[in-house]
Amino acid sequence: MSLLVAIRGWTPDAWIERFRRLAPERAVLDARQPFDAAAVTHAAVWKPAPGLLASLPNLGAIFNLGAGVDALLADPTLPDVPIARIVDPDLTARMTEWVTLNVLMHHRQVRLHAENQKGAIWGALPQPAAKDVTVGVMGLGVLGRDAAAALGRLGFRLTGWSRSPREIDGVECFAGAFGLGPFLERTDILVVLLPLTDGTRGLLCRDLFARWRRHNHMGGPVLINAGRGGLQVETDVLAALDEGTLAAASLDVFEAEPLPKTSPLWAHPKVTITPHCAADSDAEALARVIVAAIRREEAGEGIAPETLVDRRTGY
Amino acid sequence: MSLLVAIRGWTPDAWIERFRRLAPERAVLDARQPFDAAAVTHAAVWKPAPGLLASLPNLGAIFNLGAGVDALLADPTLPDVPIARIVDPDLTARMTEWVTLNVLMHHRQVRLHAENQKGAIWGALPQPAAKDVTVGVMGLGVLGRDAAAALGRLGFRLTGWSRSPREIDGVECFAGAFGLGPFLERTDILVVLLPLTDGTRGLLCRDLFARWRRHNHMGGPVLINAGRGGLQVETDVLAALDEGTLAAASLDVFEAEPLPKTSPLWAHPKVTITPHCAADSDAEALARVIVAAIRREEAGEGIAPETLVDRRTGY
Repeated sequence: MSLLVAIRGWTPDAWIERFRRLAPERAVLDARQPFDAAAVTHAAVWKPAPGLLASLPNLGAIFNLGAGVDALLADPTLPDVPIARIVDPDLTARMTEWVTLNVLMHHRQVRLHAENQKGAIWGALPQPAAKDVTVGVMGLGVLGRDAAAALGRLGFRLTGWSRSPREIDGVECFAGAFGLGPFLERTDILVVLLPLTDGTRGLLCRDLFARWRRHNHMGGPVLINAGRGGLQVETDVLAALDEGTLAAASLDVFEAEPLPKTSPLWAHPKVTITPHCAADSDAEALARVIVAAIRREEAGEGIAPETLVDRRTGY
Repeated sequence: MSLLVAIRGWTPDAWIERFRRLAPERAVLDARQPFDAAAVTHAAVWKPAPGLLASLPNLGAIFNLGAGVDALLADPTLPDVPIARIVDPDLTARMTEWVTLNVLMHHRQVRLHAENQKGAIWGALPQPAAKDVTVGVMGLGVLGRDAAAALGRLGFRLTGWSRSPREIDGVECFAGAFGLGPFLERTDILVVLLPLTDGTRGLLCRDLFARWRRHNHMGGPVLINAGRGGLQVETDVLAALDEGTLAAASLDVFEAEPLPKTSPLWAHPKVTITPHCAADSDAEALARVIVAAIRREEAGEGIAPETLVDRRTGY
């Protein structure tokens, strides 16, 4: 009945303190210290050392401290126990905020208005109604569906794309490789909230941009990526922006993070960068979500289906 | 059964063409040409010449080609016939877009992220959840209520202020002079969608800013005005920004429009300017709304209550 906290890249101390405070009924073990591997029934992890989880004979479930499980699934020794990702209303709301903000910034031409302001120019710009602009959401999980609902409330036309077919009210849905063409044909602003899997790595590349032509008030297709940096080929994004195939991009995630100082993305006039903060999570809230999920699992109710990771698909 | 089109400041020709096309059953008269005053039963106006409407003995109703009627009501000879303002879902949706965009830009610290990007700095910024930030909407008519609903969908806490008491689900409402203090005490981001009347002119002044203190992640109170320029005293806005009483402002309307090249607002680092385009209307859609309203009025159904102007209150 012990919870192992195995975190790399972040400081684990605050998480250990949170779990000890929120779950005082159980032992919370620190993977950086010697511990009794046989006692561990649950693990709360972020990019744990490969092989670590395989060394726990009584492990019942793994709780990933984020929405993306790509780093976790890259461990070939990963034991065959249920894996839960974080699904938290707070995290979802923050992602929807960021997506809505970036869609509106492009739609309402914030960059051109800012340039006019610099020149003290009182300048009208073409401004279609949201109902005449289509936002395409790639990835229709909890995050993609919530972003689509918020954008629908603002009046945007919506398309969606996912690996396997989905039906969502108010969203024209496409799926799989054959759906990609018709999806892009209709899409002015592409919002990418896909997981990083073998099937999605490098998807946002020259080939995709070449198939995606739209005439609109923004000067062409606009890319917004808040999924994973590995989804995009940054040299291709830059080339597409320079050739005018892409009109603009808002990127919160990058092939390498932090984005290296030397990346030409920083200074590109058509790129808006945020430092992987689209859905900065409230750690206290996430810890509470995980403690509740562990208690539910122990009570025999299992892992909530929308949080359960499917290893076959990789998300 | 003639419709007089009396427009100043805009080009009337396109409007006359629209009304002739959309209402072929009636004569559409151009106020710039000689016309039979006795024939005019309806007038579609924008800032008509003072005295013109008083010269129409059979005028049954006035249709204002916008949401704000302050210019119209400033004519002391205005005849005592019903006045309808534009209430159009398209116009409302555009205003809600602009308000949502500007609230999110301040909340998500777009300006600081842009500065970091300029310096190639991968920098985390404090980012509370929307539920811990309060947006206060001044003016709870059709526009204010729709903006509040969209912001509520994104999770913001909401307060509202209006001249006379209102009750709105999910909005903590305050009214009148005594309600202003408690309203401001709770408000991080102030969205102003008030009409310009004798009671609201110059409301956004030194006195109001001095009563409004908030500590938040944005560095203090944020002002967003998309109502009318006459609501704000621009020298006071500038002083409040420079003293730090106000943290930032997004302004779509100004005391004088176009905003003069010499205004220090243009170059102020804490001011975001758009050229009175928050709810640029789709003229074709507005003309259709007015033709439908005239037909309704002629059919004896009167003017839709939410569009009817109350001369006592001035909106």
